Amino acid sequence: MARTDPALYVEVLTFYARQMALLDALDVEGYVRTFTEDGVTDHAHRGERVEGRAAMLAGATAALPRYADAAVRHWNDHYLVDAEDPDRLRVTYCSLVTRTARDGSVTFEPTFAITDVLVRVDGDLLTASRTIDRDTPAPRAVAAAS
Amino acid sequence: MARTDPALYVEVLTFYARQMALLDALDVEGYVRTFTEDGVTDHAHRGERVEGRAAMLAGATAALPRYADAAVRHWNDHYLVDAEDPDRLRVTYCSLVTRTARDGSVTFEPTFAITDVLVRVDGDLLTASRTIDRDTPAPRAVAAAS
Amino acid sequence: MARTDPALYVEVLTFYARQMALLDALDVEGYVRTFTEDGVTDHAHRGERVEGRAAMLAGATAALPRYADAAVRHWNDHYLVDAEDPDRLRVTYCSLVTRTARDGSVTFEPTFAITDVLVRVDGDLLTASRTIDRDTPAPRAVAAAS
Repeated sequence: MARTDPALYVEVLTFYARQMALLDALDVEGYVRTFTEDGVTDHAHRGERVEGRAAMLAGATAALPRYADAAVRHWNDHYLVDAEDPDRLRVTYCSLVTRTARDGSVTFEPTFAITDVLVRVDGDLLTASRTIDRDTPAPRAVAAAS
Repeated sequence: MARTDPALYVEVLTFYARQMALLDALDVEGYVRTFTEDGVTDHAHRGERVEGRAAMLAGATAALPRYADAAVRHWNDHYLVDAEDPDRLRVTYCSLVTRTARDGSVTFEPTFAITDVLVRVDGDLLTASRTIDRDTPAPRAVAAAS
Repeated sequence: MARTDPALYVEVLTFYARQMALLDALDVEGYVRTFTEDGVTDHAHRGERVEGRAAMLAGATAALPRYADAAVRHWNDHYLVDAEDPDRLRVTYCSLVTRTARDGSVTFEPTFAITDVLVRVDGDLLTASRTIDRDTPAPRAVAAAS
């Protein structure tokens, strides 16, 4: 199996720690700047594709009131870092999303599988594309049960 | 304290990212191949020990219908990697297991502590044994309350 | 962006894996020894500051009976390791806390953001201070909704 360079792996995890902190603080301008100017997010499960920082910022800003009652957190796991070349990485991971209400109660959004392409621009990593798939029962299990 | 080599640590986390992706996709053949031919899984809390790939595959295949209604995800944390020798590692971690139904609602299985022995075969890591213990209240707390 | 040394990053994650194992096993003596003698924990959201191992041990011991009915687990994510100098690190992360009852059911405490200062003493890392903030809705979202 191809090995991931430890320095690159740590850089990638640090990139996500910063990006998720911006996302969960709803710092929409800061979050959008972690994408390339023409970066794309694709919520594949609902056919919603947004292209470019300006469109992402408009969408994220419009969504802000939905988060007035609960703090959001994205908990990621199982990063796989595939360096297609030194300046272009394919990263997959899964994400559990919590909403913590003012009374401290925690509820959950569905779980997701994410595939990102990260590119290096002026030395730093940026997200060029993000594809988000909501988890659904494994076809294998559905077939076995029918 | 003994230090874990960063390259080995990243290799171990990448091994688990791949293995958990196979497990949660219910790719039972692929998952079983991440164990040695005589690999063992031991659900210590229910006295259920399975030895060898063939027995593991039979058990996992029989269990498939139980996952027809919900996507499963294992969220692991707190890996400790102890290299007993370069080709034999003792790895401990804990695991939170979600089930995401078709409507997106998330429920939880109990939490677990896991101890694995990983061995290097033809250059790649494989699981030689996995011992799974369901979390129960700490004896210390039980004693303090009685 | 400043890069984190991979060996240091792995050492920090290993430190937390050990510290959280002691905390979740309610090994209060062992947990307290992962702090400096004058270590501080500050639950900022409830104005509760505890200084020194002796006070921490007294508080933790008194709290033990509260955990007689459920196993506790802290699930951390998004570590950012900032080496202010080689022997003093500022580490931030977030934490999801589960309680697993005897029947296997899982409930959740609120989610938290943590800022630690780790110092190196006789070669090993210890926590000099820990500041814990309960997650609340982002001010940005509250403003947008009003």
